[in-house]
Amino acid sequence: MALLHTEIDFVLQEAARIAAEYLKEHHDPGKRVLRATSPAKLQQELDLGLPAQGRPMESILGELPQWLDRSVRTGHPGFFNQLFGGYDLAAIVGEWMTAILNSSMYTYEVAPVATLMETALIRRMGGLAGFPDGEGVFAPGGSISNLMAVLAARNTCRPQVKQKGLQAQDRLVMFASADAHYSLKRAASIVGLGVEGLRPVPVDEVGRMQPEALAEMVDQAKAEGLQPFMVAATCSTTVPGAFDPIPPIADLAERHGLWLHLDASMGGTVLFSETHRSLMQGSERADSITWNPHKMMGVPLTCSALLLRRQGDLAASNALHADYLFHDDPEVSCDLGDLSIQCGRRMDAIKLWLSWQAHGDSGYRQRVDHLLSMASCFRDMIAARPAFKLVMEPQSFNVCFHYVPERLRSMAPGEARNAQLEVVTLALRDRLIASGRHMINFAPVRGVATFRMVVANPQVEESTLRQFLDEMEVLGADL
Amino acid sequence: MALLHTEIDFVLQEAARIAAEYLKEHHDPGKRVLRATSPAKLQQELDLGLPAQGRPMESILGELPQWLDRSVRTGHPGFFNQLFGGYDLAAIVGEWMTAILNSSMYTYEVAPVATLMETALIRRMGGLAGFPDGEGVFAPGGSISNLMAVLAARNTCRPQVKQKGLQAQDRLVMFASADAHYSLKRAASIVGLGVEGLRPVPVDEVGRMQPEALAEMVDQAKAEGLQPFMVAATCSTTVPGAFDPIPPIADLAERHGLWLHLDASMGGTVLFSETHRSLMQGSERADSITWNPHKMMGVPLTCSALLLRRQGDLAASNALHADYLFHDDPEVSCDLGDLSIQCGRRMDAIKLWLSWQAHGDSGYRQRVDHLLSMASCFRDMIAARPAFKLVMEPQSFNVCFHYVPERLRSMAPGEARNAQLEVVTLALRDRLIASGRHMINFAPVRGVATFRMVVANPQVEESTLRQFLDEMEVLGADL
Repeated sequence: MALLHTEIDFVLQEAARIAAEYLKEHHDPGKRVLRATSPAKLQQELDLGLPAQGRPMESILGELPQWLDRSVRTGHPGFFNQLFGGYDLAAIVGEWMTAILNSSMYTYEVAPVATLMETALIRRMGGLAGFPDGEGVFAPGGSISNLMAVLAARNTCRPQVKQKGLQAQDRLVMFASADAHYSLKRAASIVGLGVEGLRPVPVDEVGRMQPEALAEMVDQAKAEGLQPFMVAATCSTTVPGAFDPIPPIADLAERHGLWLHLDASMGGTVLFSETHRSLMQGSERADSITWNPHKMMGVPLTCSALLLRRQGDLAASNALHADYLFHDDPEVSCDLGDLSIQCGRRMDAIKLWLSWQAHGDSGYRQRVDHLLSMASCFRDMIAARPAFKLVMEPQSFNVCFHYVPERLRSMAPGEARNAQLEVVTLALRDRLIASGRHMINFAPVRGVATFRMVVANPQVEESTLRQFLDEMEVLGADL
Repeated sequence: MALLHTEIDFVLQEAARIAAEYLKEHHDPGKRVLRATSPAKLQQELDLGLPAQGRPMESILGELPQWLDRSVRTGHPGFFNQLFGGYDLAAIVGEWMTAILNSSMYTYEVAPVATLMETALIRRMGGLAGFPDGEGVFAPGGSISNLMAVLAARNTCRPQVKQKGLQAQDRLVMFASADAHYSLKRAASIVGLGVEGLRPVPVDEVGRMQPEALAEMVDQAKAEGLQPFMVAATCSTTVPGAFDPIPPIADLAERHGLWLHLDASMGGTVLFSETHRSLMQGSERADSITWNPHKMMGVPLTCSALLLRRQGDLAASNALHADYLFHDDPEVSCDLGDLSIQCGRRMDAIKLWLSWQAHGDSGYRQRVDHLLSMASCFRDMIAARPAFKLVMEPQSFNVCFHYVPERLRSMAPGEARNAQLEVVTLALRDRLIASGRHMINFAPVRGVATFRMVVANPQVEESTLRQFLDEMEVLGADL
């Protein structure tokens, strides 16, 4: 027993020490975001074999700093590559506790504290969105939340499908903007409608769904004998960061009896901000909302909430009342398992609950205001520097732009220039990756590779952004 | 900066200290598995509010021991309630590192080390199952793995469904044993076939699928004009712990061109054991296998692998080539994202990779041999004690049994006795929960509530089992 106690102390203290050293290095200007290495070379360097015989913990722990260092520092202020970034100490502690508690969210019986936490979080997040009497459940990421929303819509609109399956007369079709996340296409495909069961609605010049186009497409689908059942508005699209206009879409959804889903995976966090919550004006009219705290709230992946306006929709869609697991009367039970399409489910609520304790509503408000102010500041820097060009006016956390080398600045817009900008973007991104000081992603926007800045890390300041653009100018000078 | 460094050190060291104290208490005979409390009372005791203003970390950390203690000790040797148990230090360190790394498994670019780890684990696990040239991906739990298997089967059998959706002529039907996990029903419902799209095949007296019954049901379905496309065999069923016989089911699947899936969420781990791997004889003939290391391999939830025999099936089923995210040529890319139905995906491979370092193949072999030997030992104790009765001959980790108070021992089998056994089981379970020293679940078996012992924690010894049965006899004496 004494030996066991010593082992537990040693291993956990040593893991904490290694973790602390790693996090502290994020703030060291000498540390890179990444050291890009090919898979073959990395494999050689790290010897990632699985042994036939176990190895002592001391030796395993000794290797951790090496492979932490060969991973990508998503917590580094120079990481702009994904829709998340930074790190949150309280949320990390939450993950650490989740690992030692190691239970599953299906029943209150085996996860009493975490069940109350998840329930409180769902109520509060729903309250912020305008669902005072709603329900919801956490899911492992926005794609699964969106899938459950599509399922709830399908099963509410065609209640017999859950039991009997899709029938020949069910010619269901759904709508989302052309810039919506691909998980909605995948959800349409999974639930039996096919990728083509999702019709992409054109967007305006800043990436917002055009409600007039949606209206026409719904009429058109009906004229084809199809049955529109759902529209998903996106609250901050993946690339341009646009917020679809909820009120006119909600009007249309009401008129045609469509389920209104908001994919606010990224944008939900604006609900904390008095200044910016108008971006989601009308959210209370939605039937369901996906909101990922692992994005702009900074808790570790994955943490996603699916919120529903009415109680009962999720259970009606998903519950199967497995009698080996659920023992309480469903009418009074607080078991969350039958709301989900998972069985065993990680206690992802704990990290958010601890983080909320540390930040409070006001901390999240300051966070989102700061992120949006930094994104706006970045937009202004891009507009002010001759070496850069905004590709569209940004709506929120993302800024899409090109680096324009001097030789292209006077060139007339058009295909030839776009082809050059594509080449420059890819080449400059390769140089940035090789340099490893900053990491930014690119995506095709109107057919041309475009840099996508994402401000997700609250430690990003004006100086961070300036240094980043300075580096781009240096690396791109001869392109 | 110095202040920040001090904060990081303090928070993580303190979290590690709290975690170590908690884990050490699992071995304290005075510590209970749980203290059952109603949701309303627990809510009062813990004050689980979400604050408007953030609170200092010191105060938040100070509350952790209290809510850890009010959770269920799944790592306690007296916890037999679910298909997991115990704790694994190396895997916990893996989770802790996952939290500080905080990246997503979609691209090698942002998760280079973890991508190589997951790829190595998939290859090795596939190798153990008999898929030397297979592929696979990790998923957040067995239900999602099973869903992806059903999707791969549907989309392989009807390649146009991914894009076009189910058509009137697609009258697909699948099969699994009546004791299969409910996630298969849910998967059938999700993918558009309805719960009734899964036909339950009768089981024999120890809970194994009857291949002759399956053969008849496939013929029957064809006669009805339906199109059988898949059969899922279960390798250790949720309640009786039975292994369906793979070879005759595989023969049938071949004859009828059915996709053969193995739900080896629980049972996959027997593949490590020379003594017991025959339980999964024929696994190499399957098209797909679900195997959850978070069950019998002891890594924290969730960690589930979906393994496929042929390369290409998962991408064909799931890939959408989102151009904002995946930049490499799919032919040469080692990005794992398009194999999954998730987008952001937790690095669940890391915990298993670290655990494998600590145990090696030989450690897992010893583990599974010990668990099965303890389950067998428990079976013998039940058979030897007059106060207990085996409900069926156990096949693996689970033992289904009744406590039979003296007054019922001479009663003739039949409905009256069953009604009494149901009452006794529920009452004794309530008493066990109230006592909190052991936690065991129950499930209906042939319509009667039955205790289900699960041996999942390698720290369970003969003495643990004896003490548990002793407690049952004491608590049940007057029933």
